[in-house]
Amino acid sequence: MQPLGRTRWAIPEGYLPRDSAAKPRSVRSHETACLLNAGDSPAEVRLTVYFADRDPIGPFEVTVEPRRTKHLRFDELDDPASIPRETDFSTVIESSVPIVVQHSRLDARTGVAGLITTIAYAQQFTPTRAS
Amino acid sequence: MQPLGRTRWAIPEGYLPRDSAAKPRSVRSHETACLLNAGDSPAEVRLTVYFADRDPIGPFEVTVEPRRTKHLRFDELDDPASIPRETDFSTVIESSVPIVVQHSRLDARTGVAGLITTIAYAQQFTPTRAS
Amino acid sequence: MQPLGRTRWAIPEGYLPRDSAAKPRSVRSHETACLLNAGDSPAEVRLTVYFADRDPIGPFEVTVEPRRTKHLRFDELDDPASIPRETDFSTVIESSVPIVVQHSRLDARTGVAGLITTIAYAQQFTPTRAS
Amino acid sequence: MQPLGRTRWAIPEGYLPRDSAAKPRSVRSHETACLLNAGDSPAEVRLTVYFADRDPIGPFEVTVEPRRTKHLRFDELDDPASIPRETDFSTVIESSVPIVVQHSRLDARTGVAGLITTIAYAQQFTPTRAS
Repeated sequence: MQPLGRTRWAIPEGYLPRDSAAKPRSVRSHETACLLNAGDSPAEVRLTVYFADRDPIGPFEVTVEPRRTKHLRFDELDDPASIPRETDFSTVIESSVPIVVQHSRLDARTGVAGLITTIAYAQQFTPTRAS
Repeated sequence: MQPLGRTRWAIPEGYLPRDSAAKPRSVRSHETACLLNAGDSPAEVRLTVYFADRDPIGPFEVTVEPRRTKHLRFDELDDPASIPRETDFSTVIESSVPIVVQHSRLDARTGVAGLITTIAYAQQFTPTRAS
Repeated sequence: MQPLGRTRWAIPEGYLPRDSAAKPRSVRSHETACLLNAGDSPAEVRLTVYFADRDPIGPFEVTVEPRRTKHLRFDELDDPASIPRETDFSTVIESSVPIVVQHSRLDARTGVAGLITTIAYAQQFTPTRAS
Repeated sequence: MQPLGRTRWAIPEGYLPRDSAAKPRSVRSHETACLLNAGDSPAEVRLTVYFADRDPIGPFEVTVEPRRTKHLRFDELDDPASIPRETDFSTVIESSVPIVVQHSRLDARTGVAGLITTIAYAQQFTPTRAS
C-alpha cells in the first residue's frame, strides 16, 4: 500500500501568546504540530522556524516511531533554542518518511480564548510544466 | 461523473477532553469525523486510532449508506474499544469507495470553550518520481 | 492564465444550532459557504444537501457574478426547502466555472460560542491508476 | 530541492468586524494572511480583494524577503485603499516565487470571541483532461 502522507510540510501561522506558567499544562496557551507516522519505519523529523525579521532557527529534531503519533508543543521546544513568546513565526517540517501534519493552537488568554486547527500545507508534486 | 472524494484519509489531531456526562449531548465536549458518501454504493469505512506510546487500536467499522452523511463522534465509539479521555491520538480512515472527511471538535471545558474544524488530509496520487 | 479554483467541492460538516431570531443577523449562529468567482464568466452554482437518514435536498441555485464573492448563509436558504435546525448535514457544491469555496460557522449559543473555518474539499484530478 | 509552496492562492472568507481602536493591537479583532517565503529569492506579492457587489480593489503589494515570514493584517492595509469594516470580501494572492499562505482571524467582539484558521486554497496543476 502507498505510504500515507508527505515528507515536506509548512505551517505559515505561528504565535505563542504570553500565558501564566501556573495554569495546568493542558489548558495553558500553546501551539501544537500533530505528527502522524502511520508507516513501518521511524520518521526522523526536522523543524525549521522562520521569523519576520531575523534568520531562521533550527533544526529541531524529533523522532516519531512507526505507528505512533506525536503532538509536539512549540512552547516546549528548547534545542537548539526556545521560540520567543509574542512573536510571529512560521514552521517548515521535513521528514525522512511520509507523515501527516496538523496544526492546532489553544489561546487561553482572558478575553480571547479560542481554538484553531488546520491540516498543514503538504508539498505536492509539481510537474515541470506546472502552473 | 468522477466519484467525489478519496478512499484514504488522516486526522493527526485527536483529543477527548474530560467533560461532564450530565451535559446535553450536543454541547458536551466531543470530537467528530464527518463522513460524506455522495456516491451510489455503500461506503464500508474502517478507522484505526494511533497513540503516542502504544499500539494502534481498531479497526472501528461503520457503514455510510449511499447519498448519506454520518457525523461520527469519537466519544461514542466502543467496539473494539473506547478511546481514552485526555490522551493524544490520531486517526486513519479507509473506505471501500470515495468519501469526503472533515474533522471537528467542540471543547466545552470551562475557560477553554472553542470549536475547531478542518478538512482531513486526503491521500493524493503520488507519481513515481514524486517530491 | 489558468482559471482559479475547481468546479466540484464538498463540505462534510454542517449543523445549524437553534438560536434566537432576536439577535442581530451578524452575530446570530450561522453556517456560511464563501464562494469566490475570480473569473470573467458568471458561475452558475448548485448546492445539494445530504442528511444522515433521508434523501438529499436540492439543488439550491445561486449565481456568482464575475469578479465577485458571495458569502452564502445556509440558514437563509429556502428554495426548494429550508435546512432544518439541529440536524447533521453535508453539502456538495457544483459550479459551471471554477470557483473557490471556504466553509465557516459562527456558533453563538451560550456556553459554546466559537468560530470555525476551513477551505472546502476540492475534487482533484484522479489519474486512472490513482491510489 | 523543489521550491516550497505555490504562486497563486485564494482566501474566499473575509470579514473585518467593527472593534474598538482602544484595545491593544494583539487582541483587537483582525484578519491575517500569513505568508511564508522559505526560498532564496524575494517574493513580490500582490493581493486583490473581491467584494459581493462592486469591483475588486488592488493590487496591494508587499515583499516577503527570502527565509522570512510576514503575518499581514488586512485591517492595516491602506494602499491603494482601506478594506471596509463589516463587509464580506475574498482575497486572491499572487507571488513571483512559491510561498505558503495561511488565513487566520481573531474575532474579539463581545459575545462572539473566537479564532479561526485554515491553509488557504493553493492553485493546483490542472491537466488538460482534468475533472
